[in-house]
Amino acid sequence: MTCSDHQAPDSNGSTPNHVRTNGIAPHHHHPQPIVSLDHGDPTMYEAYWKKAGQRCSVTMSGFQSLSYFGDGKTLCWFMEKKLEDEIRKLHKVTGNAAIDGKHIVVGTGSSQLILAALYALAYTLDISNPVDVVSAAPYYSSYPEMIEFLRTGLFKWSGDARCFDKDVPYIEFVTSPNNPDGSTREAAVMNRGQLGMLVHDLAYYWPQYTAITSAADHDLMLFTASKCTGHAGSRIGWAVVREENVARKMVKFIEMNTIGVSKEAQLRSASVMELISLSCQKRKPCDVESFFDYSQCTLADRWKRLRDVVTKNQLFSLPKFPSHYCNFRREVVQTYPAFAWMKCKEGIDGERLLREHKIGTRSGRRFGWEAEYVRVSMLSRDDDFDLFLHRLSTIQPTANGNQN
Amino acid sequence: MTCSDHQAPDSNGSTPNHVRTNGIAPHHHHPQPIVSLDHGDPTMYEAYWKKAGQRCSVTMSGFQSLSYFGDGKTLCWFMEKKLEDEIRKLHKVTGNAAIDGKHIVVGTGSSQLILAALYALAYTLDISNPVDVVSAAPYYSSYPEMIEFLRTGLFKWSGDARCFDKDVPYIEFVTSPNNPDGSTREAAVMNRGQLGMLVHDLAYYWPQYTAITSAADHDLMLFTASKCTGHAGSRIGWAVVREENVARKMVKFIEMNTIGVSKEAQLRSASVMELISLSCQKRKPCDVESFFDYSQCTLADRWKRLRDVVTKNQLFSLPKFPSHYCNFRREVVQTYPAFAWMKCKEGIDGERLLREHKIGTRSGRRFGWEAEYVRVSMLSRDDDFDLFLHRLSTIQPTANGNQN
Repeated sequence: MTCSDHQAPDSNGSTPNHVRTNGIAPHHHHPQPIVSLDHGDPTMYEAYWKKAGQRCSVTMSGFQSLSYFGDGKTLCWFMEKKLEDEIRKLHKVTGNAAIDGKHIVVGTGSSQLILAALYALAYTLDISNPVDVVSAAPYYSSYPEMIEFLRTGLFKWSGDARCFDKDVPYIEFVTSPNNPDGSTREAAVMNRGQLGMLVHDLAYYWPQYTAITSAADHDLMLFTASKCTGHAGSRIGWAVVREENVARKMVKFIEMNTIGVSKEAQLRSASVMELISLSCQKRKPCDVESFFDYSQCTLADRWKRLRDVVTKNQLFSLPKFPSHYCNFRREVVQTYPAFAWMKCKEGIDGERLLREHKIGTRSGRRFGWEAEYVRVSMLSRDDDFDLFLHRLSTIQPTANGNQN
Repeated sequence: MTCSDHQAPDSNGSTPNHVRTNGIAPHHHHPQPIVSLDHGDPTMYEAYWKKAGQRCSVTMSGFQSLSYFGDGKTLCWFMEKKLEDEIRKLHKVTGNAAIDGKHIVVGTGSSQLILAALYALAYTLDISNPVDVVSAAPYYSSYPEMIEFLRTGLFKWSGDARCFDKDVPYIEFVTSPNNPDGSTREAAVMNRGQLGMLVHDLAYYWPQYTAITSAADHDLMLFTASKCTGHAGSRIGWAVVREENVARKMVKFIEMNTIGVSKEAQLRSASVMELISLSCQKRKPCDVESFFDYSQCTLADRWKRLRDVVTKNQLFSLPKFPSHYCNFRREVVQTYPAFAWMKCKEGIDGERLLREHKIGTRSGRRFGWEAEYVRVSMLSRDDDFDLFLHRLSTIQPTANGNQN
C-alpha cells in the first residue's frame, strides 16, 4: 500500500476528507449532494445535548492545565483525576465492564489506543518478526488501514482471524458488538493456547446499542467517548488494562506519539460522563432525561423505519439480532447497532449502487467482506437519516433483477 | 532499543513519568525532593494567565463539537476555523513566519506533527529503503527516541547531520532556536543538492526567547502552543506547509493516528492566542499586559540570576548569545532560551553531579553530546527555579578539581 492509496480524494478508501468534499461542502453547488453515512460521525446525539443545555457546559480559564502532567496519581501520568473517576463511575452505573483493580489509560480517541495496545503487546513479546494481527471478518476497516500505514517491523496485519492457522504469537482484535455488523463476538482464532493476545474493542458495548449481559472482564478493553457519549470531536478514548506492564507500555506509546492527551478534552468528557451517570439515577433532576433511554429510543425508531423500507423494496437485507436480558435495564432488550450492515441482492455492488442514488456508504470490501455489503451509519442527524431513507425507498429492482 | 529502555522508571531516559515519580510526588515523603527541570514543562507562564483571569476563559456546552469534522474549509478537515484564523493572526503580529499561500495543519502537539512530517515526506519519496533522518548535534532528544520507538520501515534515525555524507535522500530537522542549546541554526548537511528535505522545528522562534530577525519562509515549519503560549496541557501544535501534497499526507497521518485533534483544545488555544495578539497591540485594554514583554522580562531575570550563580561557583559554564535587531520589538534584543545548556568542568558527569544535589536535568548524552553537558528547563514555576538556583549555588569545587 502506498500513501497515495490513502490520499486520493476519489479513492475507494473514502476518508472523512473525501466525505466532506463530496458530502457536506457541495450542498450549495450540486442539486443532489450525497448524503454521507460512510463514517460513524455520531451527530445523532446533538439533540440530547442541546436539551441538556448548560447542565454540562465546561468553562476553562487561561491558567488551567498548562502542564503536561495530569492531576492524577496513577501510572497514566497525563490523565486528569476527574476523568478517571467519571470513567469508573460510568462503568459501575452501566455494569458493562469489570474495572476494579485494573488500570485506566486515556488516549486521543480509541484510535490512538488501538496503536498503543499493538505497540505495548508487540514490545512485550520481544520477537524478531512482526507479530500477526488478526480480527474476524467482517472487521473494522481501520485496523488494516492504520496498521499498514505505519509500516512498522513490530506487527503486521494478517487478515481474517478465522483463517489464521500459524503456530506463532498473534494479536486478535475482538470487536463486540462488532463494527460493521453489530454481532456479539468472542475470540475467533481457535485452539491457540498461550500464543494469542486479545484486545477487546468494546466501543459499542453500551446500553443504547445492545443488552449489557455481563461486566466484560478481559485483559485489555478499549472504549471511546465518540460512541458512548457522542463526542467524537473531543478525541477521548480509554483502555481498561489488567497488567501493569502493558498499561505502562501503552502510556509510553502515547508519550512518544503525542506526549499525552488534551486536558480540555479530558475535562469536558468527564463532565459529559458525569451527566450521563446522573441521568441513569432513579432520583435525578426532573429536567434530565435518561441518556441511554433517549439514545435507545432514537435508534429503535430509526431501525424500525429502515427495516420497513428494506422490506418494501426487496433489494436489500439486514441482519437479525437475538434479544437478551440486559442487566442494566433489568429487562429483555433488542439490539440497535450504530451501523446497518446492509446486503444487496447477489452480484450487485452495494456501495456503487447506493452512490448512484446519492447515498454515501462504506463497501463490504473494506471490511474484508463481499461487495454486496455496505456499512451505513445510523448515528447521523435526523435530516440526513430521513434523506437516506427517502432515497433508499426510491431504488427499485428492474425486470432483469438489477435496479434502476 | 527495546521498549523497556523507555519504560524503566529509573532508566537514563527520564520520562515525564519518571520525573513525576522522583520529582513531584515524593515532596511529602522525602526531606529533599529532587527539583525537576528535566523536561520543558512551561509552568512559568501560569502567573501571566492567572493575571489575565477570565479574559480568555472558554466555555463549551455539551452539544458543541460532537463531530469529527472541524468547521473550517481547508484540506485539514478536522481544524477549527477560529484556530486557523488566530494562528495566522499571531504569525502576522509577531512577524516570525511567512504564512501567506501556505497550508496550516493542526496536530496533537508538535510531537504528532514531527511524525506526520516524517511519514508525509517519506511517502513522497516512495523508495524501498528507510529514509535517513538527521539533525545537527546537540539535537532534540525526542527525535531519535520517537523515531526508534516506531520501528518503521519508512525512515530511520541516522544521527548528527554534520556527519551525514551518504549520497541518498534524507530528511533533516533544523531546530532554531535549537533545543537544547538555544543557538540559531541553518541546515547542517552540506552540498546535498536535491537529496535533502528539511523540516524546520521553530517551536522556540517567538519574541520572548530570541530576536525575530525575519519571517521564516521554509517548506515545512513546525510550531507548538506549549512553547509559545505555555499551554502544554492542550497538546496543540501546527505545521505551516508550502506543498499541498505534503500537507495532505500529514493530514492523512493524523487521521490514521488519532482521527483528528481535540476540538476543545483547538478552541481554547485559539482564545489564548487571540489574547496574546491583542496584548501586542499599542491600543490594548489597560489591564492586558504584553504577553511577550512579561515572558521576556521573566526569562531575562532568570538568566541573569543563573549567570550570576554560575560565575560564582566556577564549576559550570553557559553559552553566550549574540544580540540581534528584532523586527517585532524594533530594537536590539538579547537571547533568553527556554533551556540552559550547562557545561560542567571537564570529566564530570553533569546530570549525575546535579542529581546528587537534588537537581533533575537531562544529560548531554541524550542529545548526542557529551556527559559534561546538561539541559535545564528555564520555564518552571518560580519556587522550583529559586530552589534550583539555591542548590546550584551550594555546589563547590573540591581541592582535587572535583566537587563535594
